[in-house]
Amino acid sequence: MERTGVDLFSSPPPLAPPTTEEQLLDWLCLLRSRRVGPASFRRLMTAHDGSAAAALDALPAIAAASGTADYRPCPRDQAHMELRAGRRAGARLIALGAPCYPPLLAELDDAPPLLWALGALGQGALCGQPDAPAARLLTTPGIALIGARNASSLGLRMAGLLARDLGRAGVPVVSGLARGIDASAHRAALEAGTVAVIAGGIDTVYPRENAALSADIVRTGVILSEMPPGTQPRARHFPRRNRIVSGLVRAVVVVEAAARSGSLMTARIALDQGREVLAVPGHPLDPRAAGTNMLLRDGARLVRSAADVLDALDLPAAAQPAPRRAVSKPPATPAPYGRSAPPRAEAALPPRLGAGLRQRISALIGATPLPEAQLFAQVPDTPAAQLVATLQEMEIDGEVQRLPGGYLSRE
Amino acid sequence: MERTGVDLFSSPPPLAPPTTEEQLLDWLCLLRSRRVGPASFRRLMTAHDGSAAAALDALPAIAAASGTADYRPCPRDQAHMELRAGRRAGARLIALGAPCYPPLLAELDDAPPLLWALGALGQGALCGQPDAPAARLLTTPGIALIGARNASSLGLRMAGLLARDLGRAGVPVVSGLARGIDASAHRAALEAGTVAVIAGGIDTVYPRENAALSADIVRTGVILSEMPPGTQPRARHFPRRNRIVSGLVRAVVVVEAAARSGSLMTARIALDQGREVLAVPGHPLDPRAAGTNMLLRDGARLVRSAADVLDALDLPAAAQPAPRRAVSKPPATPAPYGRSAPPRAEAALPPRLGAGLRQRISALIGATPLPEAQLFAQVPDTPAAQLVATLQEMEIDGEVQRLPGGYLSRE
Repeated sequence: MERTGVDLFSSPPPLAPPTTEEQLLDWLCLLRSRRVGPASFRRLMTAHDGSAAAALDALPAIAAASGTADYRPCPRDQAHMELRAGRRAGARLIALGAPCYPPLLAELDDAPPLLWALGALGQGALCGQPDAPAARLLTTPGIALIGARNASSLGLRMAGLLARDLGRAGVPVVSGLARGIDASAHRAALEAGTVAVIAGGIDTVYPRENAALSADIVRTGVILSEMPPGTQPRARHFPRRNRIVSGLVRAVVVVEAAARSGSLMTARIALDQGREVLAVPGHPLDPRAAGTNMLLRDGARLVRSAADVLDALDLPAAAQPAPRRAVSKPPATPAPYGRSAPPRAEAALPPRLGAGLRQRISALIGATPLPEAQLFAQVPDTPAAQLVATLQEMEIDGEVQRLPGGYLSRE
Repeated sequence: MERTGVDLFSSPPPLAPPTTEEQLLDWLCLLRSRRVGPASFRRLMTAHDGSAAAALDALPAIAAASGTADYRPCPRDQAHMELRAGRRAGARLIALGAPCYPPLLAELDDAPPLLWALGALGQGALCGQPDAPAARLLTTPGIALIGARNASSLGLRMAGLLARDLGRAGVPVVSGLARGIDASAHRAALEAGTVAVIAGGIDTVYPRENAALSADIVRTGVILSEMPPGTQPRARHFPRRNRIVSGLVRAVVVVEAAARSGSLMTARIALDQGREVLAVPGHPLDPRAAGTNMLLRDGARLVRSAADVLDALDLPAAAQPAPRRAVSKPPATPAPYGRSAPPRAEAALPPRLGAGLRQRISALIGATPLPEAQLFAQVPDTPAAQLVATLQEMEIDGEVQRLPGGYLSRE
């Protein structure tokens, strides 16, 4: 059948999830192989008829063709060890394409092929039971609440109120389990169940002070990580984590953010993903509101309460159980809240413009670390925002490494 | 000539201001007659060829026709007394149609036919000299800053910062001389000169605590009142006052307002008048920001600083002295905020539409002074707003002279 629908080009092709332990090991091996990021995982799978084993076999030849001799994929032992470590921590792997893989996340080009999940997901073989209590939190698109670590007391209260009321309205609250706004949001949504995406491995706790909160989240909700168990979170992991936070949801609410804060970066990623960005206002003379006010000024929807959020997304205010997704029967309608309209300026860029830019960047970066500023100077005709976004993609795909001190390199 | 332009119906027809003391008394008598408000004043004048005396003569018959026997217009003595009382207070009357009558206010159907003004307006016969320091504050469309009487300290600081910076940018700051936000705005704009519109008579001080501020305002700016001297302000006067505050300006900035507050009523009047409404955000958990956040949520532009206000109105940010109306030398550029385009609809006009209009006006005006009203009647197909703007340009360019009493001439 010919592909004619526009959406076939904008949405990545679907993958069939692994159904046996062996296939799962193939996926893990492929995903953990050097230079295979989430986006290239998907491309490799598509090129090999959805067989991770076939893609693995082809990897050394592909590497050789691009000039890398003796490339070795991730050893099978390592995948075995990861599987054992994750299961020892009580977690299970959720594969892209599986019934309880979050539907909005699956639409991203760089959706994590495998997610480690800790929570009330039942006893299902590979991904838990779709009707387990916490599975609903994954299959129902939620709302992300994000904001400053060093939040004000007003900000913390606001995060709590929003999370509590969104939870009561049946909307999963998603955040990053950081200090401040994140922790406050998770805590207030415990009763309804909440989704925390962490930057480190599923068996790590960061920050330490959230250890008790983590344990509480797992009881009624889910903690997710795309990293191998044992990974200690580093600065470079956070942008990757943030793309999952916003990828899981229809809308990101920035509760409190100063100018040039990490929350604003997440908001930008969210816009690039086609998510709604909403913001809580603050007084202009309070610097902790500079970021949210900037977003509002640039057109973000204003949030005074959970009602504003539900209203902005045309969600019912009353508590309402999420639609159960049957495994056997494909859903008749698209995902409950399909992609919302595209973001402003970014929408005008042709989506594939980045491809040529990636090649140019690849050519400029080598094994010797290059200062980021120097790279910027060498592509002066490219808008900085686009350059930053492309670099971020490449980093997530493992094509570029960020080194301490603002250096970039390729292996 | 037939009247075809739609705008003729939406903009009230211009009036020729009184040029003699007797005519001024006729206006006062008509305006202070029972059941004659600003809008009916205008209708009566239009129906009687712009003659207040003729309208006064007709009043009893009109009243009888609508069932009121023995209707008596305002006695001439009372008008005399008002004139004396106002002048004793140091004020002068500015008549609708006079050169220093605020041009945006003049566009309202219910523009006050006469305004008592106290301030540095020079010694002009009926309305002051158009080139007196404070006259600029009346002829340049300004920005209104409004907000709560019981404002927070953040709100007061914000009002002060906005007023100071708008004043420095050459934009007249207009407010209502109430406690709180109003007083803070006037005080910070003293150096640049500010316009206060009061609800009572021009010789009353309310609230008492603003007595010193009133005296300061008069030194560099203007206090306006449409009420007869001696009028003590009552609750019902405030909405009338508020329509003048918003009528004077291009945009109203609500600095701080609770839900269901008077400031929100003013914002609504301003929207009805076609003015921009902007608002300063505050934290949703602070009830004093409920009103401004509601406005923002409903689409008002967000204000973090004077720069945001200037930006929203396409005004230059840099301080810039007001255009002294040089008769001899035409400035190279158009007036800085000459009749800034919007009230929405006008913005769509092609910018060069004025060129042909200038030629038509030139042809109509000669060395013999022509009443402005007569000129307006001779170009009935032209929107009044555009005519006013073009005349202002021509005046600034020295092509047209305005003479006392609403006459125009060319040398």
